[in-house]
Amino acid sequence: MSKKGVVIKYGGSSVATAEKLNQVADRIIRKKEEFKNIVTVVSAMGKKTNELLNLSEEISLNPNKREMDMLLSTGEQITIALLSMALNEKGHKAISLAGWQAGFRTFGHHMKSKVQSVDNELIEKYLEEGYIVIIAGFQGVNAARDITTLGRGGSDTSAVAIAASLEYPCEIYTDVEGIYTVDPRVYKDAKKLDYLSYEETLEMASLGAKVIEPRSVELAWKYNVPIYIALNTNDVEGTHIVKEGKIMEKKNITNLSIMDNILLVNIELNTNNPEIINDVFVKLGNENVNIDIISQNKFSDNKYLVSFTTTLDNREVVSKILREKKLNFDYIENVTKISIIGNAMRTQAGVASRAFEILSQNNVELHQVSTSEISISYVIDNYNVEKVVAVFVEEFNL
Amino acid sequence: MSKKGVVIKYGGSSVATAEKLNQVADRIIRKKEEFKNIVTVVSAMGKKTNELLNLSEEISLNPNKREMDMLLSTGEQITIALLSMALNEKGHKAISLAGWQAGFRTFGHHMKSKVQSVDNELIEKYLEEGYIVIIAGFQGVNAARDITTLGRGGSDTSAVAIAASLEYPCEIYTDVEGIYTVDPRVYKDAKKLDYLSYEETLEMASLGAKVIEPRSVELAWKYNVPIYIALNTNDVEGTHIVKEGKIMEKKNITNLSIMDNILLVNIELNTNNPEIINDVFVKLGNENVNIDIISQNKFSDNKYLVSFTTTLDNREVVSKILREKKLNFDYIENVTKISIIGNAMRTQAGVASRAFEILSQNNVELHQVSTSEISISYVIDNYNVEKVVAVFVEEFNL
Repeated sequence: MSKKGVVIKYGGSSVATAEKLNQVADRIIRKKEEFKNIVTVVSAMGKKTNELLNLSEEISLNPNKREMDMLLSTGEQITIALLSMALNEKGHKAISLAGWQAGFRTFGHHMKSKVQSVDNELIEKYLEEGYIVIIAGFQGVNAARDITTLGRGGSDTSAVAIAASLEYPCEIYTDVEGIYTVDPRVYKDAKKLDYLSYEETLEMASLGAKVIEPRSVELAWKYNVPIYIALNTNDVEGTHIVKEGKIMEKKNITNLSIMDNILLVNIELNTNNPEIINDVFVKLGNENVNIDIISQNKFSDNKYLVSFTTTLDNREVVSKILREKKLNFDYIENVTKISIIGNAMRTQAGVASRAFEILSQNNVELHQVSTSEISISYVIDNYNVEKVVAVFVEEFNL
Repeated sequence: MSKKGVVIKYGGSSVATAEKLNQVADRIIRKKEEFKNIVTVVSAMGKKTNELLNLSEEISLNPNKREMDMLLSTGEQITIALLSMALNEKGHKAISLAGWQAGFRTFGHHMKSKVQSVDNELIEKYLEEGYIVIIAGFQGVNAARDITTLGRGGSDTSAVAIAASLEYPCEIYTDVEGIYTVDPRVYKDAKKLDYLSYEETLEMASLGAKVIEPRSVELAWKYNVPIYIALNTNDVEGTHIVKEGKIMEKKNITNLSIMDNILLVNIELNTNNPEIINDVFVKLGNENVNIDIISQNKFSDNKYLVSFTTTLDNREVVSKILREKKLNFDYIENVTKISIIGNAMRTQAGVASRAFEILSQNNVELHQVSTSEISISYVIDNYNVEKVVAVFVEEFNL
């Protein structure tokens, strides 16, 4: 007996060519054996979005954002039309829907709109009529009848939002086999995780793991949408993201996330007047500089050191703002942020202290440390990364 | 004092590159001196539609037509976004609207939908707010919320329909200077016409003149929308298409249209049973073979000759159908249809007889003749075309 329905999402690399689109069509057809109703969400084909960005750059270096959404949304519209054609060609009823047709309502700014609701009557109508429904990810429509886009990773968010509205599970197919304890590009013997909780996944995604966007995990958590992440060929078992309580056997630490290209900025002050630093942070925010870990230390001679991390590509704008404020500052550039994540940290105090102990025994200098309820992040020198990964993997069985 | 408003249409060759889009933007800005409200309708950029067709061919040789509309409509969507960006970049308020956003409602088959209405509240709202409104031509939305396209020449039809709904005139900018008495590629001294009636233009467009699509002329005639056709640089005066009564000084014959690549098919029958020929025409219609002039003659020995013309590219399918019916037939391939058009024919009998007299005096063999209220068409041998054009141009002062 087949299950009610599923939302399947394929990213840009899975639909980059006509040949790959045909393979995706075949996989969707096989899914019909398992599920009665199939909704597929797709991204723009491979390099399509970059092609469109290049077109806009020929017209304007600071293009109107509403018109950028009008332009970029054509990328997914091309994919859905071609994928639906491929399914029709193979003798299956399929129909494509742009974001506005699928009732995908958004609010907020262009190019980074947020999901308001999915008014899915038309989706449900076509599913009842036996169609495979192909929906353009990443895009929606706002109250002014403008086409909008959701920003980076928007197609994952689209898929989860549609799954939530239909009360279906969501399967995300990509070019990796699932979620690993450590990025396999950094540590080749990393283990694939069968199960992860929403909270751990969200922490990982926020701390640099690129396999899924934080927004889509938040949405799945809120609406309790089971997510399955797997390789687009689906020939090996991927990772299930579910509620904490559904995971029977748990590791203390489920993941080690690595974020490189970090810039650590140190500012030396003769006063701890918070207005100076506040003003710096407001200016950085206006220039879209994301600030990550912030720390402040007082030295014995009444000097204060304020440190923060950001991504390396912000170096020029940070320099400019700090020079304008006539502040004493320096950088540390060759550093990496390593984070260990696990729900067990919430209840088992020993995990965090054991991590510090290991780093100390191995003479690893810590430039900055930050903790959350279920994670600890360390900013360390690049030359220590390999050693730290090895000792953490062994200690925490990653 | 500036006039109320205008709809301006630019075709694909006028917007083929970023540079050309910027030139179009500059011309639109200059139009603001003349008109308070500007609505611009544009086609897909240059070769964009062919690119999209090639993509679809990689997936299916007989693609689902609804999905073709979904695919092809992205072409104009890209143009409107970029043109609006260019206007914004130049400091002007502009906003782009896809067909569905502009309230362009259609009915009928995909890829050849017809205009139902233009619900122009959103267009009017943005005009009132001072925006230059840029609308995607060629596309609309049907009652099922599907994206539709209007088929060949659809952007002209879009522009005229929007002009009709706003009660604005319509200016169509293209790569020719206007409408000529004879196609200047055939007769280089042809004169440009300052004024033409809707009826003459429609007859011309139907008889092979490619400067404007018949559907858009019909629509303009019905809603009394003044059309102005001119070169996209607009540095020479073009042609005005208006109501018959508005044209003060008139030629007897306003236009000589030439349609080459004609196939004349002769079928010999021993009976005049109409069922045989009717069956042939139904079969041809099912294969999308357009039949133009049809004539039937009876010979003294009780044989009948049925002749019709079609375009040369239909030769294979016509042969196949006539062979299946086991009919005696032959072709004449190297022929051209020449038509003379003028409202004066309706009232002045001498025009038609003078044309026949000239052809007889010049020993031009007529393979077929067809007449309407305001035109006569002759199918003649290709080698006679140059001579006939020369004598008609002289006789009728074209």
